[in-house]
Amino acid sequence: MARTSESPTGTGTGTGASARFSAMADRVSSSAIRDLLALTEQPEVISLAGGKPAPETFPVDDIRAAADAVLARDGGAALQYSATEGYRPLREWVAATEAPGGVEEVTITAGSQQGLDLAARVLVDPGDVVVSADPGYIGAIQAFQLAGAEQMGMPSDRDGLRVDVLADRLAGGLRPRVVYVVADLSNPTGATLPEERRYELARLADRYGFWLLEDDPYRSLRWAGTAPPPLAGRCERVVRLGTMSKVLCPGLRVAYLVAPPEVSEAVVRVKQGADLHTATLSQRIVHELVSRPDFVTSRLATLPGLYRARAEALAGALRDHLGQAIGFVEPDGGMFLWARLPGVDTAALLAAALRAGVAFVPGAAFSITEPHPEHLRFSFATVSPVELDEGVRRLASVL
Amino acid sequence: MARTSESPTGTGTGTGASARFSAMADRVSSSAIRDLLALTEQPEVISLAGGKPAPETFPVDDIRAAADAVLARDGGAALQYSATEGYRPLREWVAATEAPGGVEEVTITAGSQQGLDLAARVLVDPGDVVVSADPGYIGAIQAFQLAGAEQMGMPSDRDGLRVDVLADRLAGGLRPRVVYVVADLSNPTGATLPEERRYELARLADRYGFWLLEDDPYRSLRWAGTAPPPLAGRCERVVRLGTMSKVLCPGLRVAYLVAPPEVSEAVVRVKQGADLHTATLSQRIVHELVSRPDFVTSRLATLPGLYRARAEALAGALRDHLGQAIGFVEPDGGMFLWARLPGVDTAALLAAALRAGVAFVPGAAFSITEPHPEHLRFSFATVSPVELDEGVRRLASVL
Repeated sequence: MARTSESPTGTGTGTGASARFSAMADRVSSSAIRDLLALTEQPEVISLAGGKPAPETFPVDDIRAAADAVLARDGGAALQYSATEGYRPLREWVAATEAPGGVEEVTITAGSQQGLDLAARVLVDPGDVVVSADPGYIGAIQAFQLAGAEQMGMPSDRDGLRVDVLADRLAGGLRPRVVYVVADLSNPTGATLPEERRYELARLADRYGFWLLEDDPYRSLRWAGTAPPPLAGRCERVVRLGTMSKVLCPGLRVAYLVAPPEVSEAVVRVKQGADLHTATLSQRIVHELVSRPDFVTSRLATLPGLYRARAEALAGALRDHLGQAIGFVEPDGGMFLWARLPGVDTAALLAAALRAGVAFVPGAAFSITEPHPEHLRFSFATVSPVELDEGVRRLASVL
Repeated sequence: MARTSESPTGTGTGTGASARFSAMADRVSSSAIRDLLALTEQPEVISLAGGKPAPETFPVDDIRAAADAVLARDGGAALQYSATEGYRPLREWVAATEAPGGVEEVTITAGSQQGLDLAARVLVDPGDVVVSADPGYIGAIQAFQLAGAEQMGMPSDRDGLRVDVLADRLAGGLRPRVVYVVADLSNPTGATLPEERRYELARLADRYGFWLLEDDPYRSLRWAGTAPPPLAGRCERVVRLGTMSKVLCPGLRVAYLVAPPEVSEAVVRVKQGADLHTATLSQRIVHELVSRPDFVTSRLATLPGLYRARAEALAGALRDHLGQAIGFVEPDGGMFLWARLPGVDTAALLAAALRAGVAFVPGAAFSITEPHPEHLRFSFATVSPVELDEGVRRLASVL
């Protein structure tokens, strides 16, 4: 790549539109969802395209009281620089349920997106192969792009990643550095990986020496079916990401990464250069809330109900207005419904849908290897049942 | 580098202590300051080694009221996912004083450390040369390490970077990609780059086509001398970092990066993969405060006074207890005093100093090319005049 710094001119060059950036910056493309969301935020559009949790579920008054209590009690310490690995009482709270090996395995991250970035920076060299179920989560695709990974999609079905296909590819010589898995209520498909596939995946990780990067943001939003135990604990080569974004709210940017101590140590070294530490006040607010008896339990007891009502409203509207024209599996939880319109190019459909006042995300946006041209993702998380019905009616009108 | 993923075994490998990480993770070493701080946080040690601002200056009650006001008014929006480039009213506030080209030039970052990391990721490819004044800021050295830069120290004197030496090296063929500059009250030396050097540096950036990365965290902590205008505005090839960490507090992790629009666009793409966005609540709290009439002005009017009293107490104690044995320039602001003990190995001195109950940072910790074995950095920011005197007395006792 020809760049100014590598092609000395000895004459004025300025910057202008000809400025070039690092190979990393060139690699990462802006998210298709993000570009799309800019178009779908007009008030007249019913957006089933978003990826945000329902803000009316955020415990605003509890957070307000917690912020006040933390600042009144801790004063300047709640606003000072703090440890890169995170606020120790919060790490201990995470360790109690997530890290049998102890607090040294836990790093507090600025959201799970930073967990993905740190894990990718620690584990992946440019050119290393990273395998994900295809379709996959766009934020993970971006983090692996930044690390220069060679990304490879594996087929998935209604039970998630086809571990049998992965096993065949491994037997054929594939040597991934990382296999990325959203085992519970995956984005975009909503699939949950069954016990047999989890068992086999852990066995393969041990056998072939790759890392499992287990991203688990949606576990707390389940209303049907059951989740087998996580991948973490099944083999030593697991980096597990959990988050407070769905159980509390995403705007505090508090999540956690759990990994063997030597991986956690490398993660902390990279995080020190990346942002020194996660916001002190955010961490202390979260700890203040989660350490209240029954706070998390009572939220987990009530939270999925609202999402369930919306998912059922969406599924009902799809059946009512589109009938046999659309195929989908009703989600067991999470925020998304993945559907297929046989014979329809969903990327082309989007423009017409926007004119009719409804938005969704075309399957192509989640592509790793396969294009998913007939698929689309609906988010029901922030839309009322009445609007879900109206949105689907509008979509049906342009089909 | 031999790694498991590149040397397939087909047999169980486990992870254990033999796990290896990416070249990036291997490159970045834990901060010497950080390892040291772990040893100096015993209560009986008077630490002049820290890099934290004085917590008693943090506007705790104002932040408490601002958090309450923001949550009461904005509700769930203050806790929701938000734009990667930052909260628009806060970006507009920054743009009003920092970005004549407008709000598109401003990205809100999770502290200036993230600004360094994002700038390095956008501008630097592995092997690119990054030039800094030597001694240099450890956090910047780490960010450039992560990007794989070839780091080169340039000599500095009491006026900061020797721009004349840089000019000679450029004339001799050196082609850096980035020149990193803390022009005002630099860490560790406290130097402020004079007008002539700023003018010349901008001219060189234009001529040789390198980027100036201007990191300006201490400008608000000046009590003596004057600061020439920033590098930003003198040529087009400037990425400027500013922060709320010193004027408000560091624990909210709110800072900003100002750069030409095409650089800012690349920064936002990388930040999207790095952490989606800076904490929404932190940004709104900061905006709530800075948009109050006179809030920032009145803080800037009173903040340097406390630091000045401490700097003068430290300088007085050094003269009283060490006299001719130590050489230093009294700082015009900031948080640090850089000194020299001729004939003393300050790294070796530290162990004895810790036994005597006082800590500092040896010059070697700030080394880029030169070792600075006789130098040391004192922080006076968080220590009372009485303890500063006692700390220096302890240091004198082991010399």
